[in-house]
Amino acid sequence: MAEKTRYDYRVEPQNVDCTLHSTMESLGNYLLNTAGDDAQSKGFGVDVLGPKNRLWVLMRMAMEFDNRPEQYSRFGVNTWVSENNRIVSTRNFEVIDGCGNVFGRSVSQWCLIDSVRRTPVSLEELYDLNRDMLCTEPEPCPSPRKLLSCDHDGSSIHKVVYSDIDFNGHVNTMRYITMMTDLLPLEVHRQNRPFRLDVNFLHECLYGDELSISYSMDCDLASFEIRNGSGVTAVRATIEWK
Amino acid sequence: MAEKTRYDYRVEPQNVDCTLHSTMESLGNYLLNTAGDDAQSKGFGVDVLGPKNRLWVLMRMAMEFDNRPEQYSRFGVNTWVSENNRIVSTRNFEVIDGCGNVFGRSVSQWCLIDSVRRTPVSLEELYDLNRDMLCTEPEPCPSPRKLLSCDHDGSSIHKVVYSDIDFNGHVNTMRYITMMTDLLPLEVHRQNRPFRLDVNFLHECLYGDELSISYSMDCDLASFEIRNGSGVTAVRATIEWK
Repeated sequence: MAEKTRYDYRVEPQNVDCTLHSTMESLGNYLLNTAGDDAQSKGFGVDVLGPKNRLWVLMRMAMEFDNRPEQYSRFGVNTWVSENNRIVSTRNFEVIDGCGNVFGRSVSQWCLIDSVRRTPVSLEELYDLNRDMLCTEPEPCPSPRKLLSCDHDGSSIHKVVYSDIDFNGHVNTMRYITMMTDLLPLEVHRQNRPFRLDVNFLHECLYGDELSISYSMDCDLASFEIRNGSGVTAVRATIEWK
Repeated sequence: MAEKTRYDYRVEPQNVDCTLHSTMESLGNYLLNTAGDDAQSKGFGVDVLGPKNRLWVLMRMAMEFDNRPEQYSRFGVNTWVSENNRIVSTRNFEVIDGCGNVFGRSVSQWCLIDSVRRTPVSLEELYDLNRDMLCTEPEPCPSPRKLLSCDHDGSSIHKVVYSDIDFNGHVNTMRYITMMTDLLPLEVHRQNRPFRLDVNFLHECLYGDELSISYSMDCDLASFEIRNGSGVTAVRATIEWK
């Protein structure tokens, strides 16, 4: 039986916003980097899967943070895989401050795809690489919600540029979060209140795509939808402040 | 007499581009973080100067890199202050790969300002904090050039958003580099050739400003100019590939 594994970080100056607290994008990046490092150290990372034409794709994610940590503060991230069904692998995170208190929790759902055919493959393939990847610890917060389309109040256009894209020529996962949070009033960021973010990744966006980013605010709930130039929904997200 | 001091880093996934090599923005951020950490550890950092209403401001910078390092590679940065004249402090960097070879060199020029009056102050103030901050090692590459205005072929508009700004509400130093490199054709980034970047910071840009980013390419030299909404030049830069 696998156990939670801990990775340690420091909040660097390029990861903070105008309040000197870590941005939502950078918090998400710490979690995704942890996932990458943990998968690699346990034998099912991109180094082993890439040459087999296999690629991990993030489908949905939920993150709950009681606060966003300050510049130069140090924190740990525990991670563990709690479940693999036929095509969805659930990876969890808890984020721990210097006093040992958990101030962040996250559940992420991934599928493994054939990087040539772009279709999901069975997670049974992983058991040849690691027969002991699951940990019985429960998910630390409610699973990511499945988000539906809704009406929005405003929108903006963003053309996908060099700094947005990854090795596959797709927009970086967490860059979508930045596109969305850039639409919020500065006062919302300045409050640094506890929040929950749910995000669904539905379609990839490419270099040069003209994205439409729409959003609406209803009390303490912001909802977002990003569509590509053909009008196909690529990402949906909600942020709820508590 | 002070000596060179070394800081170590790893290229994280959020710091690479579509070629899996560190972006120019992230290379610059590693150097600026090194400057911040080194100044702090030697008694003249933001922790000591901030409460005295003193702020380091980057005026000009030159960076020369033989290559941009790959994702997950580790490297070291040596830094030292070689000269303080009345108002300009010169801080140098050399970047060293895992085999001990120097593959990056940088010279940066800073002034110290009164953060309330926004005017430069004499660097003599620093000698109360550290009488032994200078190192006799020479600058590792030619000093940053003073760049003049020039005609440009094309331009784009960028409205300053939340993710662009720092604690002072000004655009982050290295974000200007991203705005500029986003205008270059992808092929230029894919070549990963040795380059030299010169940048002059002339005026601060604020949240909500509509920036005009103009550029031109002439063989292996790209030149850039960023103006704020009032037409005032904020940043000039050149990138030369070798």
